[in-house]
Amino acid sequence: MLKVDILKSLLEQKRYSELKEILKTRNSADISIALDELGSEQLIVIYRLLTKTKAAKVFSYMEPDTQEKLITSMTDKELKETMDEMFVDDAVDMIEEMPSNVVKRILRHTPHEQREIINMFLRYPSGSAGSVMTIEFVDLKEYMTVAEAFAKIKKVGVDSETIYTCYVLDEERTLIGIITVRTMLLADSTAKIKDLMETNFIAVNTLDDKEDAARKFDKYDLLALPVVDMESKMVGIITVDDAVDVLKEETTEDIEKMAAISPSDASYFKMSSLTHAKNRILWLVVLMLSASITGAILTKYQEAISSVPLLVSFIPMLMNTGGNCGNQSASLIIRGIALDEIVPSDFFKALFKEVRISLLVALVLSLVNGLRIYAVYKDIQLMVVITLSLIFTVILSKVLGCALPILAKKLKLDPALMAAPLITTIVDACSMFIYFNIALIIMGQRIG
Amino acid sequence: MLKVDILKSLLEQKRYSELKEILKTRNSADISIALDELGSEQLIVIYRLLTKTKAAKVFSYMEPDTQEKLITSMTDKELKETMDEMFVDDAVDMIEEMPSNVVKRILRHTPHEQREIINMFLRYPSGSAGSVMTIEFVDLKEYMTVAEAFAKIKKVGVDSETIYTCYVLDEERTLIGIITVRTMLLADSTAKIKDLMETNFIAVNTLDDKEDAARKFDKYDLLALPVVDMESKMVGIITVDDAVDVLKEETTEDIEKMAAISPSDASYFKMSSLTHAKNRILWLVVLMLSASITGAILTKYQEAISSVPLLVSFIPMLMNTGGNCGNQSASLIIRGIALDEIVPSDFFKALFKEVRISLLVALVLSLVNGLRIYAVYKDIQLMVVITLSLIFTVILSKVLGCALPILAKKLKLDPALMAAPLITTIVDACSMFIYFNIALIIMGQRIG
Repeated sequence: MLKVDILKSLLEQKRYSELKEILKTRNSADISIALDELGSEQLIVIYRLLTKTKAAKVFSYMEPDTQEKLITSMTDKELKETMDEMFVDDAVDMIEEMPSNVVKRILRHTPHEQREIINMFLRYPSGSAGSVMTIEFVDLKEYMTVAEAFAKIKKVGVDSETIYTCYVLDEERTLIGIITVRTMLLADSTAKIKDLMETNFIAVNTLDDKEDAARKFDKYDLLALPVVDMESKMVGIITVDDAVDVLKEETTEDIEKMAAISPSDASYFKMSSLTHAKNRILWLVVLMLSASITGAILTKYQEAISSVPLLVSFIPMLMNTGGNCGNQSASLIIRGIALDEIVPSDFFKALFKEVRISLLVALVLSLVNGLRIYAVYKDIQLMVVITLSLIFTVILSKVLGCALPILAKKLKLDPALMAAPLITTIVDACSMFIYFNIALIIMGQRIG
Repeated sequence: MLKVDILKSLLEQKRYSELKEILKTRNSADISIALDELGSEQLIVIYRLLTKTKAAKVFSYMEPDTQEKLITSMTDKELKETMDEMFVDDAVDMIEEMPSNVVKRILRHTPHEQREIINMFLRYPSGSAGSVMTIEFVDLKEYMTVAEAFAKIKKVGVDSETIYTCYVLDEERTLIGIITVRTMLLADSTAKIKDLMETNFIAVNTLDDKEDAARKFDKYDLLALPVVDMESKMVGIITVDDAVDVLKEETTEDIEKMAAISPSDASYFKMSSLTHAKNRILWLVVLMLSASITGAILTKYQEAISSVPLLVSFIPMLMNTGGNCGNQSASLIIRGIALDEIVPSDFFKALFKEVRISLLVALVLSLVNGLRIYAVYKDIQLMVVITLSLIFTVILSKVLGCALPILAKKLKLDPALMAAPLITTIVDACSMFIYFNIALIIMGQRIG
């Protein structure tokens, strides 16, 4: 790691040549992390000490707010150079995070062709494969030899994000095959691309879901994935590093949704407390008000509670166990759906599985709990009431925890929203209703 | 996708040459998915229709139980050929999942050198970088020219999992530099490796945590990461596809732990209901028994409950809101720790942030709730009691949800264990204690 304190003290002592040497030996990702902590004046000084290519790389790794600070201190010429060197997908990522006045200035200083491409990207929906692709790839013709292909790579390779997978296009720019540098390196230099290329390849459409596209990298062990438009014309590629980013973000979003938080892109400390609170409050209010339904159910049984106040002391156990059981099932099912291990047509298969699991779990829990209650209270009626309620709660929570996320997926909703918080609230109301009704039936005389 | 029904019907009609043609056009990952659903007799027929190299690839993509089925039907010669063609890391992954009698048969038919390497791998601890690395990489010498390097790649490339990053070793096999095929392709063929190689590279130790190693791929946009031993000698590489697998598994494990489930490698449907139940029951029993502490606290206030039974109806709201608030904070903090955005030294910074957030959240929740209670019950005392209890519950749950995971990390425990289920149980007990004490103080006359 590059210590930001060292940078700062060298800057203050104006020891620029030493700084330059240190920066040379560090990689772009580490430098950008250190720069995220500097003020805009120090930032631009360091930035000017980097070589042009490295500067653009460091820039693309930075946090959006650091990028914004830096752009404001850059001269127009510097901004133009940076945009020139950046890969289009990094430039698009950056522009999406900037306020509109900064975007205008950036686009004014972006070369014409690149600006057109950036504008095209900005029009792809944010969850689409098109929005994360890059258009800098190596395209070959099927009549080329391996030697000619290598010559072409040498010519255009510097500007391509990856050269290891090349794309064979026909005259209409339709993708007809892919070929890896590996295949070409291991083949004869006079061999024809046509005879070496793989014609049975995986591709996605610009409008396909970016998460589905990213999952293909894991399934097929890809380094890059071609993106084609509606007419099968090749428009770009997604590289493995972008796929890893997509998966990371989608997982974080799922975890946030499962915890009843409105998802956001910013990292924990980058986000203000106010924004954190805003992202959390909506679901909390909804769930709090829903919980008053359970409260209203309890109010209906005030008489029973007054006659046997002991009944109240099992409310936390029943509610917690229901919540935990539902949480377990929902978490596994939601993760399974995200990883494509569970699909909507598995509905009944999954449901039967959860019913079997819940019977096993209910058996153990009610045994442990029944023994404890009998040992403490020596009250068979109480034991039966609690045991029956517990069994009902466990089965209901596991069934809902399994069914709701799959149904959500079927209805094209986000399964991650059908997680513990919502399920707990539903199970609480049902289990309290059942608990007091069982109590009224079995302990009727004492409650009477 | 390859339809398993088509395979089955072609098999039954013994139309083997057609089958062979279909298999040729499909990629290994899709074939292996289809094969996972066949019986062992059909499996071996299809397997024999594949070319040797493709067969090994298909084999390494299969689920462990399909691999086991297939191995049992293979002749010794076929087993030997498969092991010959497989990459060492795939072979190790497979062996780790097989019962010991199958392992013995596999190792008996593995070439001597490969067997030694497999044995070496099996000795690396399961969470270590060594356990996921592969030893098939291209090593170069610094005095080579680019042309000589390409000649070497051509010679050893077929057996290497990736050729795109090559490793420059000295006579003692110490790693002194790395060089990409891209750099070499764009350079002159007479250029020396020494002048082109990157000497400032990222490497990990065999015993480093595999998750930390995998995170470096995202941070530095890597395709492969060299693994060195204690003496800086190069022993293997981790490739990006293995890194993606590691991250996927670790995230699934975290999600399972956060839902109070003992983590497991198997996918949802591959695991029996009994195993599912076993993985879930331990925490359920622990949390159920802990919840009876909250129950015991409620028992202490039976008198208050008998006098003002209405108090009971706010228990679900307080417990749910506490649970949801704690879940939000714990989920964000645990994910932040997993992504290295939050480190143990951020303890106080994170704590102050959660306190600020919880004050904002508590303000909104208590306003909404206070108004509702006043509108429904016209009871100022009740409103004050509930509002104070709610504020206390929100702050406590957010503070615990933030503090416990970070403390766990500090103590080298798994932060994911300090998630909603545990925090809810603690918050429930505390909030019920506070609730009834506030009620006794403020509504003392009515309760008395």
